[in-house]
Amino acid sequence: MFYLIGLGLGDAKDITVKGLEIIKKCDKVFLEAYTSILTVGKDSLEEFYGRSLILADREMCESYIDDILKEAQDKDIALLVVGDPLGATTHTDMLLRAKQMGVKSQIVHNASIMNAVSCCGLQLYNFGETVSIPYWTETWKPDSFFEKIENNFSRNLHTLCLLDIKVKEPTEESLTKKVRQYMDPRFMSVKEAAVQLVQIIENKSNPGIKKNSTAVGLSRVGSTDQRIAVKSLEEMQHLDLGPPLHSLVIPAPDLHPLELDYLEQFR
Amino acid sequence: MFYLIGLGLGDAKDITVKGLEIIKKCDKVFLEAYTSILTVGKDSLEEFYGRSLILADREMCESYIDDILKEAQDKDIALLVVGDPLGATTHTDMLLRAKQMGVKSQIVHNASIMNAVSCCGLQLYNFGETVSIPYWTETWKPDSFFEKIENNFSRNLHTLCLLDIKVKEPTEESLTKKVRQYMDPRFMSVKEAAVQLVQIIENKSNPGIKKNSTAVGLSRVGSTDQRIAVKSLEEMQHLDLGPPLHSLVIPAPDLHPLELDYLEQFR
Repeated sequence: MFYLIGLGLGDAKDITVKGLEIIKKCDKVFLEAYTSILTVGKDSLEEFYGRSLILADREMCESYIDDILKEAQDKDIALLVVGDPLGATTHTDMLLRAKQMGVKSQIVHNASIMNAVSCCGLQLYNFGETVSIPYWTETWKPDSFFEKIENNFSRNLHTLCLLDIKVKEPTEESLTKKVRQYMDPRFMSVKEAAVQLVQIIENKSNPGIKKNSTAVGLSRVGSTDQRIAVKSLEEMQHLDLGPPLHSLVIPAPDLHPLELDYLEQFR
Repeated sequence: MFYLIGLGLGDAKDITVKGLEIIKKCDKVFLEAYTSILTVGKDSLEEFYGRSLILADREMCESYIDDILKEAQDKDIALLVVGDPLGATTHTDMLLRAKQMGVKSQIVHNASIMNAVSCCGLQLYNFGETVSIPYWTETWKPDSFFEKIENNFSRNLHTLCLLDIKVKEPTEESLTKKVRQYMDPRFMSVKEAAVQLVQIIENKSNPGIKKNSTAVGLSRVGSTDQRIAVKSLEEMQHLDLGPPLHSLVIPAPDLHPLELDYLEQFR
């Protein structure tokens, strides 16, 4: 059996009772370590679960998944994923491969930023399409997500912006070499996202979102030291919300009175 | 302290370890029983938690919440909510009142249909605005949600349709009487939702969604007997997906190959 288990968003205790029971009985448990992170590391999880975990990086999840699934044909194997296990395409693909290989699978859901973002008081059913903001490089500055934010905004919908995560990314120089070298992990902050958004706004003639548009910055959602701040995008460029993970929301122009009241406490 | 604790979607064991620890130490624990339901009832939860629960209906949550919060000023009080605790406006309002009354509060997140819907293989970041489909009566047949579905569809986004729940709704006749009488609980099925959608389509001259448009019906998401079916809306009118809760998704017209492959298994 192949189990995909969501760990939720905060620390070791955000796993469900069902998920914990499965972890304890499995023959092998992998910890997916590149699409997101918890506020605690592998050691804390191992201590809490009372068992060892195998770190699974992008290469393992994408290139060696068939070997893992083969093992799951007659053993119980679990892959732990931060948030909900089906937040990323990779995991849906794994389930499909499992089915093709005749391996049974089970999903154990948990909270993800896609629903926990409601902690800022903006109602989930008023969110439009979610966007991802990638890290820009010197030569690559995509901004297609901006149009989606404008689109949501014009239909009076909020936009959740997921911020880029770079974990175990090979350096450009090593891509052509035998031995891969990896960059330090990077997690885009609300501040960095705001800087990129303001740059896009400054380059447009009539942007749907302005520098003085309201934004909601969130960090470490679901943990005890979670932070939420409401500021203009311009101001958000100078705000430090502490350690990762961060997320950004661009609220709709006309808010429900309850949404307004709730946001007010984070100004 | 006032705790809002999400129970997830399936059974008693879908609570998080953090949530369970809080339930065990609280002075009083209320179970919210009108915005959603689990596949198990109050008895199973009480047995699993090893403590008694107080059922909280709409009246208690809306009219007597201040009394509950007053008690939370010097006691530990928890309110258990199916799914994630901030899925419904009511609960955001409670947190705001708590703050105004100087009562500390903590949210324990969990999976909700808003993220667990990804179990059908449609990617969460391709969903547009979520809609709610209400039960029609003889004289009240609102269809404003249809335009939102069309809007999402035209932007190549999926729509999650939350289906109506009527729990402890007073009968129309008793609204003017001293003693309220209540209707039997009703949970809209995928079948009933499809019937209403087809009626709307038949009354429009050029609807963005047709009777032969694809729909995804889901029931009891997150439980072991979860069911998913992919059919045209027309066919969906005759499909029985078993006990509640049900949800319906209208997928975008152009799907990612992985989404197509994943949906194929439910046809």
